[in-house]
Amino acid sequence: MTSPDMTVFADLESNVRGYCRSWPTVFDTASGAWLRDESGREYLDFFAGAGALNYGHNNPVLKESLLEYIAGDGLTHGLDMSTVAKRDLLESLRERIFRPRGLDYKVQFPGPTGANAVEAALKLARKATGRTEILNFTNAFHGMTLGALSVTGNAAKRAGAGVPLQHATSMPFDGYLSGADDDSFEWMERTLDDASSGLDRPAAVIVETVQGEGGVNIASVRWLCKLARLCSAREILLIVDDVQMGCGRTGPFFSFEIAGITPDIVTLSKSIGGYGLPMALVLFKPELDLWKPGEHNGTFRGNNPAFVTARAALEHYWADEALEAATRAKGERIDRALAGMAAAFAGVSARGRGLVHGMVFDDASQAAKVCAAAFQRGLLVETSGAEDEVVKLLPPLTISDYELDHGLELLGASLDAVCGGRGR
Amino acid sequence: MTSPDMTVFADLESNVRGYCRSWPTVFDTASGAWLRDESGREYLDFFAGAGALNYGHNNPVLKESLLEYIAGDGLTHGLDMSTVAKRDLLESLRERIFRPRGLDYKVQFPGPTGANAVEAALKLARKATGRTEILNFTNAFHGMTLGALSVTGNAAKRAGAGVPLQHATSMPFDGYLSGADDDSFEWMERTLDDASSGLDRPAAVIVETVQGEGGVNIASVRWLCKLARLCSAREILLIVDDVQMGCGRTGPFFSFEIAGITPDIVTLSKSIGGYGLPMALVLFKPELDLWKPGEHNGTFRGNNPAFVTARAALEHYWADEALEAATRAKGERIDRALAGMAAAFAGVSARGRGLVHGMVFDDASQAAKVCAAAFQRGLLVETSGAEDEVVKLLPPLTISDYELDHGLELLGASLDAVCGGRGR
Amino acid sequence: MTSPDMTVFADLESNVRGYCRSWPTVFDTASGAWLRDESGREYLDFFAGAGALNYGHNNPVLKESLLEYIAGDGLTHGLDMSTVAKRDLLESLRERIFRPRGLDYKVQFPGPTGANAVEAALKLARKATGRTEILNFTNAFHGMTLGALSVTGNAAKRAGAGVPLQHATSMPFDGYLSGADDDSFEWMERTLDDASSGLDRPAAVIVETVQGEGGVNIASVRWLCKLARLCSAREILLIVDDVQMGCGRTGPFFSFEIAGITPDIVTLSKSIGGYGLPMALVLFKPELDLWKPGEHNGTFRGNNPAFVTARAALEHYWADEALEAATRAKGERIDRALAGMAAAFAGVSARGRGLVHGMVFDDASQAAKVCAAAFQRGLLVETSGAEDEVVKLLPPLTISDYELDHGLELLGASLDAVCGGRGR
Amino acid sequence: MTSPDMTVFADLESNVRGYCRSWPTVFDTASGAWLRDESGREYLDFFAGAGALNYGHNNPVLKESLLEYIAGDGLTHGLDMSTVAKRDLLESLRERIFRPRGLDYKVQFPGPTGANAVEAALKLARKATGRTEILNFTNAFHGMTLGALSVTGNAAKRAGAGVPLQHATSMPFDGYLSGADDDSFEWMERTLDDASSGLDRPAAVIVETVQGEGGVNIASVRWLCKLARLCSAREILLIVDDVQMGCGRTGPFFSFEIAGITPDIVTLSKSIGGYGLPMALVLFKPELDLWKPGEHNGTFRGNNPAFVTARAALEHYWADEALEAATRAKGERIDRALAGMAAAFAGVSARGRGLVHGMVFDDASQAAKVCAAAFQRGLLVETSGAEDEVVKLLPPLTISDYELDHGLELLGASLDAVCGGRGR
Repeated sequence: MTSPDMTVFADLESNVRGYCRSWPTVFDTASGAWLRDESGREYLDFFAGAGALNYGHNNPVLKESLLEYIAGDGLTHGLDMSTVAKRDLLESLRERIFRPRGLDYKVQFPGPTGANAVEAALKLARKATGRTEILNFTNAFHGMTLGALSVTGNAAKRAGAGVPLQHATSMPFDGYLSGADDDSFEWMERTLDDASSGLDRPAAVIVETVQGEGGVNIASVRWLCKLARLCSAREILLIVDDVQMGCGRTGPFFSFEIAGITPDIVTLSKSIGGYGLPMALVLFKPELDLWKPGEHNGTFRGNNPAFVTARAALEHYWADEALEAATRAKGERIDRALAGMAAAFAGVSARGRGLVHGMVFDDASQAAKVCAAAFQRGLLVETSGAEDEVVKLLPPLTISDYELDHGLELLGASLDAVCGGRGR
Repeated sequence: MTSPDMTVFADLESNVRGYCRSWPTVFDTASGAWLRDESGREYLDFFAGAGALNYGHNNPVLKESLLEYIAGDGLTHGLDMSTVAKRDLLESLRERIFRPRGLDYKVQFPGPTGANAVEAALKLARKATGRTEILNFTNAFHGMTLGALSVTGNAAKRAGAGVPLQHATSMPFDGYLSGADDDSFEWMERTLDDASSGLDRPAAVIVETVQGEGGVNIASVRWLCKLARLCSAREILLIVDDVQMGCGRTGPFFSFEIAGITPDIVTLSKSIGGYGLPMALVLFKPELDLWKPGEHNGTFRGNNPAFVTARAALEHYWADEALEAATRAKGERIDRALAGMAAAFAGVSARGRGLVHGMVFDDASQAAKVCAAAFQRGLLVETSGAEDEVVKLLPPLTISDYELDHGLELLGASLDAVCGGRGR
Repeated sequence: MTSPDMTVFADLESNVRGYCRSWPTVFDTASGAWLRDESGREYLDFFAGAGALNYGHNNPVLKESLLEYIAGDGLTHGLDMSTVAKRDLLESLRERIFRPRGLDYKVQFPGPTGANAVEAALKLARKATGRTEILNFTNAFHGMTLGALSVTGNAAKRAGAGVPLQHATSMPFDGYLSGADDDSFEWMERTLDDASSGLDRPAAVIVETVQGEGGVNIASVRWLCKLARLCSAREILLIVDDVQMGCGRTGPFFSFEIAGITPDIVTLSKSIGGYGLPMALVLFKPELDLWKPGEHNGTFRGNNPAFVTARAALEHYWADEALEAATRAKGERIDRALAGMAAAFAGVSARGRGLVHGMVFDDASQAAKVCAAAFQRGLLVETSGAEDEVVKLLPPLTISDYELDHGLELLGASLDAVCGGRGR
Repeated sequence: MTSPDMTVFADLESNVRGYCRSWPTVFDTASGAWLRDESGREYLDFFAGAGALNYGHNNPVLKESLLEYIAGDGLTHGLDMSTVAKRDLLESLRERIFRPRGLDYKVQFPGPTGANAVEAALKLARKATGRTEILNFTNAFHGMTLGALSVTGNAAKRAGAGVPLQHATSMPFDGYLSGADDDSFEWMERTLDDASSGLDRPAAVIVETVQGEGGVNIASVRWLCKLARLCSAREILLIVDDVQMGCGRTGPFFSFEIAGITPDIVTLSKSIGGYGLPMALVLFKPELDLWKPGEHNGTFRGNNPAFVTARAALEHYWADEALEAATRAKGERIDRALAGMAAAFAGVSARGRGLVHGMVFDDASQAAKVCAAAFQRGLLVETSGAEDEVVKLLPPLTISDYELDHGLELLGASLDAVCGGRGR
């Protein structure tokens, strides 16, 4: 195998590029849970486009719809014009997602990225309440545009803003403080209820039910319920950012279903388009639909090919409960495998929900080494967490048990290569 | 013809939707300069996806590349991994765009929207200079995320932020003040050079060479040259936001070529993907490439199908000067037609460059009426400007002379219907 | 006694006036611990100008110096010109305050109010560190100008800003959370040390050792020491706002002496001028003296009559340890009396240090009633705390034991009148 | 004469000190227009405490009231308690100032400095309008606390903030731009009235009628009238900051009387206390009195000795029109003298109104040299302006013609020493 020609990337592409440094090859094609580089080498994907490929690469069901739509000259770029593709999608959303769950949401197409969705959600929350401040959580990740970045925790990313980030205050996520579960909200409740705490009454709280970028930190059902009550009792809007954890990643379509709560505002992106095409949605309770026409917009908010694949995914995967059940079952398969690895190696622990898992290293530097070892073995995994101390597992939901086991074996071998000889 | 079923839009879609109100039908397919609604009615497109469809709807050359890529399981979602499609695109950018123009730019993929590109540009300018403030211009439009919105002029859109917009100060665009051309910069130069003006030294100036959303306001070559010198002499970075006016809209690939200037940072989106697929770029001088890996990111920054169509567009349309010449010629065709209409109706004037034109109404309310009359006649045009007083013409660059003339006739008829009987 | 003529106050003075509503009379003269209204009625002062009159009203020693200075045409208004009065004051500061305590501080005259001092301290901390954020504490009070207000906790006062208050984050003061003492810093340390907490590295922490306006909340020596170490270990500047608790209010000249710590920056005002004349100081370590000439200024920063009385107070009261000892003894006298009252009435507790004490009511509304009852009995006391639930005792340090006892009796009688019949 | 002992200033006082560098001596006593240093040398004062000593140093009329009040144990420190001294002052304000001018203002005591007054005025304007933004003017000076600094022009002072200054936008002061008078407002009106200018609708405009610190820039009557109309027509509050130019400095008590306008809010400080004692007022129309009790406060807002001298000044100097007439006459005397100097020396021009004048040097460095030469000759004058290019004359209003002429002679000699041999 000759080494790939990467000259033009080094010459022309900005230093800001990242993943290509961890995975130094030139990818060419992909299908299901597999990528292929231009030399023909195959890689099993436990990353799934950072959660944008829940249905796998180039999913054949969606691909068929997409090819048919493009071949038939279906409208591609639609801004917020009414189109047949959008109507079909809205109907599927209603029938496959909202109705079965008793949800009554309005749908906004805010522009095709998660950051667009978060920016729109924050704007709407501020507009609806007349307040400016937002509460976010430690280790949160909500995006890189100025508004989204202000509610994101990572210091290196925040520094990129070049201006002080404002109108947001961090609160401790579930488990962040050392005390018992009930203590987690003491600080938040005290500062909200105390007229002399120095915290201005916020418009909204924005939360991920599982913090993927933040290190696979998992909010318990109890914590989520308490958060929802806490917000509701104080007329603070609850925004669940389901960009990464929605679309079935944790099992149910919405990650918050497990807690039986109904957020005021929900953001969706990544896998909502189904095929990895740019698309995002903001869902909110009808009484919050205070937008004026055009008050928020975006050139690519009507990416109709993504509407087509989004609809195909809803119809194919969410007409029954099979995918959710399969995700749970595969999640347990991973749980067992990771528990075994954690038992075998000192300084390693594991956590997860549905098909998002983290393997946490006491020695943070090992996480990147394990990822590098995995790449060498043909497995794509990435780190997350404040110190990049977590190896994050985000396989496609459509992965087969065989592929899953194979990937877990490669992960185990990588772990052994990095941490071996230091087993418990 | 039965009226289209639009119930689900009214029921589910947020009030924020806009264009679907001006054009009350359900679009289905499209090709070249034409859209078709589900009843089969055809509309000639003088809007071109707000400038995202310079090569027309579902351009057959690009469509072929796209279908082939998708059918062949080309990698769809690539984050910032190195891919064959990205390498091909970078090479075309270098060969077809940078080299012939003597440009030495680094290329950032900031996420697939113009707002992502503007946010990244502002962050980079602040990081590179250590300063926080940005100068923008009256009537500017740069996007709807918090950072981009802060440099946007429109009060209704600004109000949507829900927080005071900061770190930006408006300066008068070319022609904004009543005085002679040379006066336009007096205020800007005085406040920049006066240590007691109250204006903090800015990181950058961000400018559109033609303000599309702002009402087709056109900066003269002389003004652009002076602006570039003014920035350069004070070590203030010059950002040209070429999201709408780039990719040949005004004739040359970059709209600033006409002035012979080299901006420090350039943003591209809309038509850069060629096919109307979400994609954006930030270009900057190599010495500004101060990003750390991953300091700015975005899930859909590697929308590889768009890279494929982007590349096909560069190779097909920018390997020679035919498109630029054709755009100029068609622009003159429009100039003549609009001049005739302006002469025929009181209170109407026209302006434009390349294939962006504005018909300006002294009585602002007439502009929307003309657009409505055009829709009834099968022509899609939209208003722009602070008071929506301008009918903006943005036909695809690939439109035929016949189609162009036909559209101009429909426009003339619409104008006559609204303003007729009041001719000069 | 006829009721006083207060028409002109109602007619001309703004609604913003406050104390005159609690104490509805027209005061005329004052001396020591006593005020007299125009009808000749006398009031014992347990408020001492909110801590600005530690040496009593019109203290005869200071009065003599003041009259002499004015009569002799001593320079009154000196900006930051060098004057004999300022030189004398600086020498007294060095000999009576800095040298005995081993302190090496530079002295800034920032303008004559505590808010001026706090604003200057925040500016200097930001300038010295290049960081923008400040940490303050729950229930903090630092002043009403925009910078000082941003680090103040009270929601009603914050609302007066009319703009979102920025660049400050509240942390829990000692005892704010229910857990053990050691827990108090867990949140602060975690968010400071965690690169993904969402809290940007601050320039400084600003703290009162006893929060007077916040409800007489007392930081323990242990907590203060831990705070100082926490800041020092992270190169975060420690600002002690000693505007109200300095000048001997808690016993020693600086309230932080009890903890053996040396803040990087100290603010003084209120009693520093001795006679109740406007004056303020900022003290800071020499290496922080990064000001350029005139970078902070203020018309009344050279209020020379206040320099004269300030010096007289230092020479008379701080040449030995008598005042400090007396303050401690009187404080214990109050401790005993309040303990008795707390034991006698349900829902009442007491706390204090030196000559600042708070009587805390479980039923917040009783505190204002006790103050009103005290006024009727000729005793001036005021409420403080987030809910105005605390009766705050701030008698002059120079009060006699007899006066102190008398006041405490009046307070007891007031308490009995409000809470009587509900004794334990 | 031995050189003064200034060691303690160098050792202890912060680098921020300024005036003491221009005037390197130690001042001791003062009366009328004269200061005396400790060696007995006398200096004629053309600076008057930066405008805080309009009635001269230790004015005998005021001094008598002050000594009597202090000797009689008049209440010194009164917060916002009702006092006899405050009542007397309010009555004098009404009788001597408001009634004769037909003004109906509410009076707020915001704390004893001009910055306190400006901060309160900005807070009130924002509260009353619900808007956040303020318009200020080029070369404005309004104070050094965070809110006041944000509307101040000087870049060096702004840099001291350590955070980006926000919520304020500079507009061109009268004469700032080169065009005709009418052009001065074109930019301001356009940006206010254009819904796409990027300027958010402001709460208020804050203006000095003569910019003292900014270089003795004088707004014409016509410009002030136009500004007032412009604000009124758009429901934008007009704040006149009369801290330096009020209390008769330009002739009438309020500097805006000359234009026949009635600002919505007026700030007063500096000479309002009469004797150079710290005091400030905010005046506003009754309908703006939306403060809640205590919503703005300050420990030294009830500096009663200053109320006594303030009242004495109102009664003595403002019961008839003698002072105003004298100020005008003396102003003309200065006009003539400066015109002569300007004629005699190239690169020197003069401007002024009442008893504030500026001598402007084309070569900015000469201004400081002239001040130094004046100090050597026993005359105190200081520079102002963006480049310190203006020698500012602010003699006490009570200066005698003889003293005035003497000072002007010293100034002429200083000018000759610096610029001599280069006469026209």
